[in-house]
Amino acid sequence: MKLNLLDLRRQLGAGELDTRVLIEDCLARIEAVNPAFNAFIRIEADGARAAAAASAARYRDGKARALEGLPIAIKDNIDLAGSPTTAGMLTRRDRQAATDAGVVRRLKAAGAVIVGKLNMTEAALGADGSNPHFGHCHNPLKSGFSPGGSSSGSAAAVAAGLVPAALGTDTMGSVRIPAAYCGIWGLKPSFGLVSTAGSVAVSRHLDHIGPLATCAGDLELLLESMAGFDPDCPVSRPVQLLEREPGFTLGVPDLSGVDLEPAVAQAWRTTLERLKSKGVEMRSLAALPVSAGRIRRAGLLLCEAEMLAEHGGDWDSNRSAFSPQLQALLEWAGRQSAPKLAEAMRCIDKARLAVNQWLAACDFVLLPTTPQRAFAFAEPVPVNQADLTCLANCAGLPAVSLPLAHEPDQLPSGLQLIGAYASDRAVIRSAARLHDLLTGDS
Amino acid sequence: MKLNLLDLRRQLGAGELDTRVLIEDCLARIEAVNPAFNAFIRIEADGARAAAAASAARYRDGKARALEGLPIAIKDNIDLAGSPTTAGMLTRRDRQAATDAGVVRRLKAAGAVIVGKLNMTEAALGADGSNPHFGHCHNPLKSGFSPGGSSSGSAAAVAAGLVPAALGTDTMGSVRIPAAYCGIWGLKPSFGLVSTAGSVAVSRHLDHIGPLATCAGDLELLLESMAGFDPDCPVSRPVQLLEREPGFTLGVPDLSGVDLEPAVAQAWRTTLERLKSKGVEMRSLAALPVSAGRIRRAGLLLCEAEMLAEHGGDWDSNRSAFSPQLQALLEWAGRQSAPKLAEAMRCIDKARLAVNQWLAACDFVLLPTTPQRAFAFAEPVPVNQADLTCLANCAGLPAVSLPLAHEPDQLPSGLQLIGAYASDRAVIRSAARLHDLLTGDS
Repeated sequence: MKLNLLDLRRQLGAGELDTRVLIEDCLARIEAVNPAFNAFIRIEADGARAAAAASAARYRDGKARALEGLPIAIKDNIDLAGSPTTAGMLTRRDRQAATDAGVVRRLKAAGAVIVGKLNMTEAALGADGSNPHFGHCHNPLKSGFSPGGSSSGSAAAVAAGLVPAALGTDTMGSVRIPAAYCGIWGLKPSFGLVSTAGSVAVSRHLDHIGPLATCAGDLELLLESMAGFDPDCPVSRPVQLLEREPGFTLGVPDLSGVDLEPAVAQAWRTTLERLKSKGVEMRSLAALPVSAGRIRRAGLLLCEAEMLAEHGGDWDSNRSAFSPQLQALLEWAGRQSAPKLAEAMRCIDKARLAVNQWLAACDFVLLPTTPQRAFAFAEPVPVNQADLTCLANCAGLPAVSLPLAHEPDQLPSGLQLIGAYASDRAVIRSAARLHDLLTGDS
Repeated sequence: MKLNLLDLRRQLGAGELDTRVLIEDCLARIEAVNPAFNAFIRIEADGARAAAAASAARYRDGKARALEGLPIAIKDNIDLAGSPTTAGMLTRRDRQAATDAGVVRRLKAAGAVIVGKLNMTEAALGADGSNPHFGHCHNPLKSGFSPGGSSSGSAAAVAAGLVPAALGTDTMGSVRIPAAYCGIWGLKPSFGLVSTAGSVAVSRHLDHIGPLATCAGDLELLLESMAGFDPDCPVSRPVQLLEREPGFTLGVPDLSGVDLEPAVAQAWRTTLERLKSKGVEMRSLAALPVSAGRIRRAGLLLCEAEMLAEHGGDWDSNRSAFSPQLQALLEWAGRQSAPKLAEAMRCIDKARLAVNQWLAACDFVLLPTTPQRAFAFAEPVPVNQADLTCLANCAGLPAVSLPLAHEPDQLPSGLQLIGAYASDRAVIRSAARLHDLLTGDS
């Protein structure tokens, strides 16, 4: 049975569980199980134990906060004071963070216990779980298979039950893709809602920090603590989350231009039929005005160009420490022109426009999270992994990936729900409702 | 005496004035006075007369809306159905708009009467009032002098009393600079609050459409009708304007790195002294972490690169129709690299961060609108005109330029107030309060 923040919080609050026991259990499990997956690249045992003791005192004194004593792990491109922030890069292996990232500060202020830093795709550019410097992260559901990326360790750690929840970053789908491949839940919040200050940028204009967990309720619990204006974050906004619950009309875009793997296409058809049979109101939406692949490539150029700015110093002085694959991508980007990048940004604007226009005709847009399920490391990496997730990044809109039920001998796939700006709570709750409809007895 | 929307609206509502008379007067005044300034490049007499008749009927029937029958003119880079949208460019002289821009649709839905299209700097790139294709627009306060730009005609038409209010566009300061040079009021709203759909882009990421008027109340009246989510605009957001009135602590940045013209420096010192003597709470703020000039140049590169995307077809097929100055700017931008543009965007992010950090220490940031006053067309164009205005564009924050009192034989200068995201109403009202404090008897 998977750990769940809401249950743990209840047990801790009721005195049925002690935070120190919880954290020791968690650390022991990580030590025992992690070598099989390589999800953690650093365990913060001392800090976690100190925080657990402080949390135990707060429970004793009746001063427990929303996430008091709950173990959470964070992707290694997010600053934790006193630890290196590698971003999965060799160049940054010893790059110590002086202060906590804005979102880590918020989690700690809510009582969360940070137990360690998680493996990820090098520089967060790419959606497989490989890493040439820190080793592959494996899918806990099937060894030798990718957990997805770039938040590979975040999804693997939660799916393997090492921690109940983790933070990932999502620039083109890097929270939702691994959530789908590992059969868990992931949220990319509204742009500007969660501070990205203190994280290593891929593209400041597409980056989002989001939680991965085992249920919708945990995503909402985490978001409440994570959200909030941060004057130290260049893209933070004082977003007011919408209180109003919208309707439940689901928009279903024409996906004829997207190359869905047969198993995903089958799961998608089954899902739509089941929702129809349950009486859910659904509306057909037009296809994208530009191909998803073009949008994805536009987003990638923006990422690569911004990464040259982010990692410029290392790139100039220590280029050989970048993997050959990453070198090739950045060298290519370095040869592109400013107008080509502006054209790419225009393409991103078109995607934003298209998703907003979809949402003018429905309450939520429904999509598969990815065109495929987890693939073996031995196979070539599919190029279109982010085709369906990158749309919510371009649009800056909240999107949840929820796990679809699957046969025990099969790998899972995910379903994605995108909502209007600042409707993050409604997207999470509607995803939960969708999950109930799809898994409940008809 | 200048026309004022609020007074006119009251007179129309009370039956003291008929919209048809108001519009005929307005058209007659434009015909008589415009040749001296060249603010209008097209007068929409037929459309205005038809709208005025419809408005008169609405007043008769007790169905008058917020802007019923009020004459408003719009900058010629904003679509008005059935008229060309030139953007001050030769290539676009006959480029007929099929539909109204989103914001024009909103103004018309509130009853406004669009009386014509206004002169502007070619392609809205630049802040002087020159135009090689449609002729210079002159400052109504001093012929031979620039009214500022790029919304030159918008400011000149309002300052000359041809219309009570006009729309401009503001990418780096193009509403506020001409408002300051012409002694009137101008607002750049929060990013995403007012739709820019149906306007010719300079940079979709810095562009804002904003009103120019003769008093703060008119800015607020117009904004209420202009604001609102537009799914057809790629950067529109369902922004909830803040209701809460903040305090009135003014932050005053260190301007030692900005080259203020002596008259502006003197007016700035006098303003600060006067506010201090009135007991206004003021807080000193740090200088920008990067020079204003560097931020301005970063913004310009983004504009030029996006303009190559916006005008790419004309640029490839009809380059000689671009002025030599504009050709030189765009050719230069075409030779820049994608990473250089990404670096420029990073610089814009730094400016956003700096302004947000200023606002963490005060309720509003106070600045001169421009480092200089209006200059003669015979003089070289100052390079740093947008150094103090571009900050609010980078930050996406609401900013008002209000006119400072000046001797009758002197040209005016403007004061700028920047507020937190979505605090547009509070910025306008606080600018009005500031104006009262500065012009009232001590």
